[in-house]
Amino acid sequence: MKSASNFKGTRDYSGTEVRLRDFVISEIRSVFESFGFEPLETPVLELKSTLTGKYGEEAENLLFYLDRPFNKGGLRYDHTVPLARFAASKWNELPKPYKRYSLGPVFRGENPQAGRLRQFVQCDFDTLGSTSPLVDAEIAAITNNVLNNLGLAGKFEIQVNDRCFLDAALNEIGFKDKKEKDKALRAWDKIEKIGTKEATKSLGKEFQKITAEMISGTEVSDLFTSKNSKESLQKITDLLDLINDMGVPDKNIRFNPLLARGLSYYTGPIFETVVKDSEIGSISGGGRYDKLISDLGGPDVPASGSSFGVERLLFVLEKLEIRPKFEYSQRILVTIFGEEFMKDSVKTADYLREKGLIVELYSDYSDNISKQLKYANKKKFDYAVIIGEEEKANGKITAKNLKSSEQQQLAIEDFSKLLK
Amino acid sequence: MKSASNFKGTRDYSGTEVRLRDFVISEIRSVFESFGFEPLETPVLELKSTLTGKYGEEAENLLFYLDRPFNKGGLRYDHTVPLARFAASKWNELPKPYKRYSLGPVFRGENPQAGRLRQFVQCDFDTLGSTSPLVDAEIAAITNNVLNNLGLAGKFEIQVNDRCFLDAALNEIGFKDKKEKDKALRAWDKIEKIGTKEATKSLGKEFQKITAEMISGTEVSDLFTSKNSKESLQKITDLLDLINDMGVPDKNIRFNPLLARGLSYYTGPIFETVVKDSEIGSISGGGRYDKLISDLGGPDVPASGSSFGVERLLFVLEKLEIRPKFEYSQRILVTIFGEEFMKDSVKTADYLREKGLIVELYSDYSDNISKQLKYANKKKFDYAVIIGEEEKANGKITAKNLKSSEQQQLAIEDFSKLLK
Repeated sequence: MKSASNFKGTRDYSGTEVRLRDFVISEIRSVFESFGFEPLETPVLELKSTLTGKYGEEAENLLFYLDRPFNKGGLRYDHTVPLARFAASKWNELPKPYKRYSLGPVFRGENPQAGRLRQFVQCDFDTLGSTSPLVDAEIAAITNNVLNNLGLAGKFEIQVNDRCFLDAALNEIGFKDKKEKDKALRAWDKIEKIGTKEATKSLGKEFQKITAEMISGTEVSDLFTSKNSKESLQKITDLLDLINDMGVPDKNIRFNPLLARGLSYYTGPIFETVVKDSEIGSISGGGRYDKLISDLGGPDVPASGSSFGVERLLFVLEKLEIRPKFEYSQRILVTIFGEEFMKDSVKTADYLREKGLIVELYSDYSDNISKQLKYANKKKFDYAVIIGEEEKANGKITAKNLKSSEQQQLAIEDFSKLLK
Repeated sequence: MKSASNFKGTRDYSGTEVRLRDFVISEIRSVFESFGFEPLETPVLELKSTLTGKYGEEAENLLFYLDRPFNKGGLRYDHTVPLARFAASKWNELPKPYKRYSLGPVFRGENPQAGRLRQFVQCDFDTLGSTSPLVDAEIAAITNNVLNNLGLAGKFEIQVNDRCFLDAALNEIGFKDKKEKDKALRAWDKIEKIGTKEATKSLGKEFQKITAEMISGTEVSDLFTSKNSKESLQKITDLLDLINDMGVPDKNIRFNPLLARGLSYYTGPIFETVVKDSEIGSISGGGRYDKLISDLGGPDVPASGSSFGVERLLFVLEKLEIRPKFEYSQRILVTIFGEEFMKDSVKTADYLREKGLIVELYSDYSDNISKQLKYANKKKFDYAVIIGEEEKANGKITAKNLKSSEQQQLAIEDFSKLLK
């Protein structure tokens, strides 16, 4: 090994970091399951022909390809392309609509920045084959439940908009062709990052004026009055009602007429979740994308879904000092007083483990007890168990509480009862 | 997408397949945790300089490397190389001995065969920094607990041997240099696959004679009587005693003097687990490898550990028709009788989900109830809930048991109580 470095833009997680990541992922999984979504696990490796030519050049530049002799392959960039491939091969067999979730790492050859790695975990849920607004409303309901379960209640806002409204509004402003519209959408998208002036500078006075009014809080129904605008605003109102009926309170959700979402593939409602004081853009986002699955080579079906970024969620939890409570068993180190007591310690460890406890047996019996206790403290064990002459003679063990430093001699059965 | 094919040697898992995989992995994790092992999650991508020159040419030919501009990187081949890299960078901070486990996919550019994929999940546990036989004995204890928990009790055998015994025995037979010995070990390793005659053919009459006696069951202590042989046989006896003390019954473990394990890096006790009638070589294997971590560029510390192959375990479970019991919540489809009943169904679904149930809301209210029920059956739901004119008037719901086809009208609160 020439160096002990990680591949650029990747990192290791150990101990409690992993347990916290697993906890977050398992909470997300459990909400997805509770809405009837089925798991789908696709491989990390995909054919290059599946991966390319989908999202345009920008995404293609971020793909990792394999070297010869495996140069037909590359690493998945997201969970949507694999979903399209899977749906293409299995559509006839799948229940329709097909509601699936995918959890796992995706890979992007970006230059790493704070909080942006080249390998990161995305948790996606999507419904293929339904145009129902219920499917769109579920995006908000699922997001709401996940964030509440993770301890973020009261701290997040799910922003909603609709590409149909944006399209109607841009038509009213006077933008007609797709290129112009995309430019305007990108401008709105960038306001939070670079400010209104910079974002809108090359898009004309009228656009700047209306943008300013939207930001200042003027009712959009006063600004946009065309038939299409009115209809799409009504659609948003109905969607918000549905979301309410799904148990999401008003304070957790907001219509943001300036929300555009960079990706041009959305065709209907769009969502983005922002956590207050988190110093991070968004922790989840998605919407309706009725053309994308067929563009990606899948069946020609409508689709709607969203995605959580696990690293972003963990960043926010740390930032807000929210420590989700995940259950810990009591952790016990069984020490070994010396070689002649080894058998007693081995059997004690086995007994306690059978009672469902987490029990490490200290391995090197030639180490003195003080070294063994130091190790127990370093690994943050709750108890150390000691069996020496006296304990052996009494048929008992000594249990030392490592938090309080109190210790007591008692029968092993009583100790295991104490901890349950 | 030119084709909807997977990258050669990879496959998708969906629905219950994923749930079963997750269940197996979580049982393994839970046993590792119960012995005090800490999780370590390393990235899929590693530097080429970390990956190469370790296990010899054979392994290097199976590595996946990235193409330019990322050609410094490749995909991990196992969890041991990343462990060595991690230990090299963090050794001073880690508790010693360092007991860690790693669960996740590894990648090998092999030609796929039945049951051998290019991406598969390995679950490793290893102890770095201890020469204690307790650490070796734990390999058997952990293996025993994992397999019992997965429902394989009574169906597996953990085979044990020791490289020190093999070395002493080969010395007695007359093999002196490492090359000769490796050839002899590989021969013993291959007996089960290709038969004794074929495996031992170029290794001389004496070797063939002794091999035949070992296979016929002659006591190895009668065959090998040098001081080294006797000492190493005593070491194996002591290890088997320790393993017994750790709660592993005699019938689950057997000294197999012909077990060699192909990899030349083992230096002490070795283990391999075989499941009867499974038509598969082994589902876990490992042992002591005191030189490997430093050979891999990590700290110069003794090490011992083992690994489970998830796909192999699943293959065996299926073969033996063992279906691990993982808890299912009752799964409910809330149907929608028509657009005017949508709100009632939405609220009912939300209510039941809040009670902790798995509740899918049918999305397309224009579909008739019979189509909705068909969907519920296809997705193997337990109940369908129907709310129409009559139910709405009565303030009740109709719950249809999809297994028995019985249905009853009752209050939603009573229905949710019924299912808890």
